[in-house]
Amino acid sequence: MAKNPTPIISLTTDFGEQDGYVGIMRGVILTICPDATLIDLTHAIAPQNLPAAAFVLYQSFDYFPPHTVHCVVVDPGVGSQRRAVAIRTGGGIFVGPDNGVFSLVLNSGLNVLEAVTLTNPRYQLKNVSHTFHGRDIFAPAAAHIAAGIPLPELGSPATNLVPLESAASPTADQCQVIHIDRFGNLFLNLTASQVTAPDKIVFTIGDQEVRRLHNTFADVDEGQAVAYVGSTKQHVEIAVRNGNAADRFSLKVGDTIRISNR
Amino acid sequence: MAKNPTPIISLTTDFGEQDGYVGIMRGVILTICPDATLIDLTHAIAPQNLPAAAFVLYQSFDYFPPHTVHCVVVDPGVGSQRRAVAIRTGGGIFVGPDNGVFSLVLNSGLNVLEAVTLTNPRYQLKNVSHTFHGRDIFAPAAAHIAAGIPLPELGSPATNLVPLESAASPTADQCQVIHIDRFGNLFLNLTASQVTAPDKIVFTIGDQEVRRLHNTFADVDEGQAVAYVGSTKQHVEIAVRNGNAADRFSLKVGDTIRISNR
Amino acid sequence: MAKNPTPIISLTTDFGEQDGYVGIMRGVILTICPDATLIDLTHAIAPQNLPAAAFVLYQSFDYFPPHTVHCVVVDPGVGSQRRAVAIRTGGGIFVGPDNGVFSLVLNSGLNVLEAVTLTNPRYQLKNVSHTFHGRDIFAPAAAHIAAGIPLPELGSPATNLVPLESAASPTADQCQVIHIDRFGNLFLNLTASQVTAPDKIVFTIGDQEVRRLHNTFADVDEGQAVAYVGSTKQHVEIAVRNGNAADRFSLKVGDTIRISNR
Repeated sequence: MAKNPTPIISLTTDFGEQDGYVGIMRGVILTICPDATLIDLTHAIAPQNLPAAAFVLYQSFDYFPPHTVHCVVVDPGVGSQRRAVAIRTGGGIFVGPDNGVFSLVLNSGLNVLEAVTLTNPRYQLKNVSHTFHGRDIFAPAAAHIAAGIPLPELGSPATNLVPLESAASPTADQCQVIHIDRFGNLFLNLTASQVTAPDKIVFTIGDQEVRRLHNTFADVDEGQAVAYVGSTKQHVEIAVRNGNAADRFSLKVGDTIRISNR
Repeated sequence: MAKNPTPIISLTTDFGEQDGYVGIMRGVILTICPDATLIDLTHAIAPQNLPAAAFVLYQSFDYFPPHTVHCVVVDPGVGSQRRAVAIRTGGGIFVGPDNGVFSLVLNSGLNVLEAVTLTNPRYQLKNVSHTFHGRDIFAPAAAHIAAGIPLPELGSPATNLVPLESAASPTADQCQVIHIDRFGNLFLNLTASQVTAPDKIVFTIGDQEVRRLHNTFADVDEGQAVAYVGSTKQHVEIAVRNGNAADRFSLKVGDTIRISNR
Repeated sequence: MAKNPTPIISLTTDFGEQDGYVGIMRGVILTICPDATLIDLTHAIAPQNLPAAAFVLYQSFDYFPPHTVHCVVVDPGVGSQRRAVAIRTGGGIFVGPDNGVFSLVLNSGLNVLEAVTLTNPRYQLKNVSHTFHGRDIFAPAAAHIAAGIPLPELGSPATNLVPLESAASPTADQCQVIHIDRFGNLFLNLTASQVTAPDKIVFTIGDQEVRRLHNTFADVDEGQAVAYVGSTKQHVEIAVRNGNAADRFSLKVGDTIRISNR
C-alpha cells in the first residue's frame, strides 16, 4: 500500500512512572503527532545510568520497524552545554541527549545517514525549561520527526557524537558483568563467538565454578547455575535455573568473572 | 460497519518493565501487525508465579472484546519440552506456554473452539532462542493471529492441555487466600454463593475474628476489618478499610482461614 | 480536516500495575470506544493519596490536547455516598470521584463549562460493584464521553464540587514541600513570582542552608544542593545535582522549610 506506515515512537527514560513525567511526554507527542503509536521500552532505568539505558536500547532497537523513532531521555547533563541530537540510521531514528547513550547502538554496525542538533525553536515547546528537556525538546522533536519533518529542519548537522566510556573488552582470563535483569540473570561482555572451547570453559566466581557453555538454563536441574548463549545478540549469560544468579553469586554490574579452560 | 475491528492484544508477563523485554515484544508485534492496539494487563507477576498470572487473567479477560488476543508469558519451562499453544474460545484467544496458566480462564465456562501448538516456523522469528520465547514465538503468534491468520496455520491441534495444580476448594470449615492485591486486600477461594448464612459467618484468623459478610468496606469504620463480596466474580474478600489486611493479619497467598457460623 | 480528532483518555490511579486493575479498565474502555488512544499518566500514586494525585494531574493536564478525557481513580470513598462526576473545561474533561482530586486543576484558572454526576446506568457496566467503580463507572463514563456522548446524558448537573483540603500558602518566613519526585527533588508551594529577591533568598533546613535561586541544577557542582525555578508552573524546587535532596535533607511531603533573606 502507498499509505505511510503508522508513526511509531519508543520511549526510554529514567523517569519511573510515579511522577507523571512520562505521561506528560506522551501528551506532548500526541498533541503534535496524534496518530503516533507510543511504545514504552522502559522507564525504570536507574537514575542517570547511561550504560544501562544504552544496553536496553542496544538489546531492543532492531525488533522495531526501521521507521521507529526511539526517544531516550537519560540526561544527567540537562541544563548544561550538552547537545540534544537526532540521528537517522538504517535501523531507526534516535532522539536524545548527546551523552553516549546511543553508543552501543551506533557501534553495532548501523549506518548513520544524518545527525542534527535540535536547536530550531520551531520544533520545541514555546517555553523551554532548564530541567525538563524530555518534555520541551526531545518529545516535540520525536513527534515532529515521526510526523514527517526532515531532520535538517530541526537543526544543523551534528558531528563528533560523544561516545560512552566503553566497558572493558573480555580477555582470555576474564569477562565482566554488563547487565543484570529482573530475574537476576547475569549478562556478560563475552559473546558466543569469543568462546573457543564451549565444552571446556570454566567461569570462576569466588570459590564457585560454573562449567561449560550450555544452550539454555533448561539444560540443568532447578537451582543449578548455568552459563549459556542468551537471547541478546549472542551474549553469554549466567543464570540459576528458577533462581537468581545475582543473589547466589553476590555480583553486580561491573564485577569481573575469571575464565579458564579445563 | 463491515470493517474488521481493530486488533487488540493484551500482554501479561512476569518480565517487569525495567529490562525492556516487554518493549521488545511490543516492537515484534507492531512489526507484524502495525495497527494492533497493545494493552498491558500486568508485567509485575512475581517471577514464574503461575497461579498469580492465572488469577489476573481470570479476573480480567471478560472485560475485553472477545476478539482480543491475550498473550501470556510466565514461562518457567522455556527451553524445555513444554508446548507453546494458542487457544480460541468464545471469550478471547489465548497465546502462551502450555503450563496451566490458562486453567482458571478455561475452567470458568469458556468453550474451547480450537487449540493448536505453535510449531510452524513461518509464524516465529527467524532465529528462535532457547530462553526468550516471548519475543521469538509468543509475540509473533499473537500478532499473526490478531492480523487474521487462522489458528490451524500456526500448528497442529493441541489436546490435553496441562492443568494448573488447582487450589483447594473451600470446605464448611475453612477457605484459602488465593490472591492479595496492592491494597493488601485478601481474595478468598470462597464465593458469595458458597456462603449460606451471610449474617452469621465468622472468619477466624489467629485470635482475631471478622464477622458476617458485608456489601463493601465502606460499611465499616476506617481501620476496621471487613469481609464482603468483592468485585471479582463474586469472590469474598477481606480488607481493612483504608488499611492493609495482609499486613494486619500477617497472611500470604495459600494461607488458610477458619470459617464458622454463630 | 473535518474528521473528529482521535479520542484520547488519560488514566491516573493508585492501583499500581501488578493486579491487572488498570488493564481491566483499559479493556472496558476499548470495548466501548475502540479507537481511543489510552495514555497512562501514572498508576503509582500512593494508595488513597489525594494530594499526590491532584498534583500530578495539575502538573500534566495542559500538555494534552484539550479534547482529552482525564480519568482519575484515587477513591478512598468508593462504596460510600461520595459522588462520581464528569467535569468539562476548556482544558480537558475530567472524570472521577468528587473528592477534591480535581481541585488543583480547577483552581489553576480553568473555566468549568459543565459538570454532572455519573448516575445514568445506561453509561455504567451492567453490574456495578461496591468496590471497583474505576471499572464499573469511571472507565465506561470516560469511554462514552470520548466517543462523543454529551455530558448531560450521563447524569444531572453537579454543583458544589468537594474541595481538597488545601496546602498552606507560603509566607514570608516559610514554605512547604508539596511533592517529591523519583529523583528526590523537592517541589515547594513557593512559585518564582513569590520570590522577591532571588539573589538573596536563603532556605534553611535543619542546620543546612541553600542560598539564592538558580536557573537550574547544572549551575552548581555535582553533589551540591540547589534551589531553582523548576519546570512545573514556575514552582521552586530544591535538588542535589546528580543526587537526592529528599534523602540529603530527610524531608517528606508536608514538611516546612524556613525562608529568609540575607
